[in-house]
Amino acid sequence: MDLDFDKMDGLVPAIIQDADTRVVLMLGFMNEDAYKKTVETGKVTFFSRTKQRLWTKGETSGNFLNVVSIKVDCDKDTLLIKVHPVGPVCHTGTDTCWGEENK
Amino acid sequence: MDLDFDKMDGLVPAIIQDADTRVVLMLGFMNEDAYKKTVETGKVTFFSRTKQRLWTKGETSGNFLNVVSIKVDCDKDTLLIKVHPVGPVCHTGTDTCWGEENK
Repeated sequence: MDLDFDKMDGLVPAIIQDADTRVVLMLGFMNEDAYKKTVETGKVTFFSRTKQRLWTKGETSGNFLNVVSIKVDCDKDTLLIKVHPVGPVCHTGTDTCWGEENK
Repeated sequence: MDLDFDKMDGLVPAIIQDADTRVVLMLGFMNEDAYKKTVETGKVTFFSRTKQRLWTKGETSGNFLNVVSIKVDCDKDTLLIKVHPVGPVCHTGTDTCWGEENK
């Protein structure tokens, strides 16, 4: 897929949305390696800016984000990824990182 | 609202979602001034990275994004803004920047 990683130090934002409810679950950043790993494994992998490494969501909690579809926007610098989440998405224990219920 | 603008050169990503259909319409970036203007006017204003200035969505097209609610995520560095859009959102003429229909 044609993606522009140059605008923001090699990163693009990826919006994670529930494929069924359409609730927005979280946002993370991907570099090219994270994007490739996401496509290859079917599980969302980000580049963690705090950890400075690839971070597969759920790698410790088991709460993976299983990819349903990936779309690139008109400017080729933002991803919209629709998923089926396993369990609550936020590290605080809520369904989304905005404290909303996923229903 | 308590927002962390320090992680990314003074910018935070803002996801724009239709308040009724839940379709994700676009993503833009806000600096503190863009955020304040959005809150004050009730119309979404971004900081355009290409124009390097505040950019009220719709300022030339008339296709404003009227704010319904603004939420900050668990890390205080990403906004989820629910809107009622006026007309198509993308500069290509489609309803969203991912070429989807808003329905």
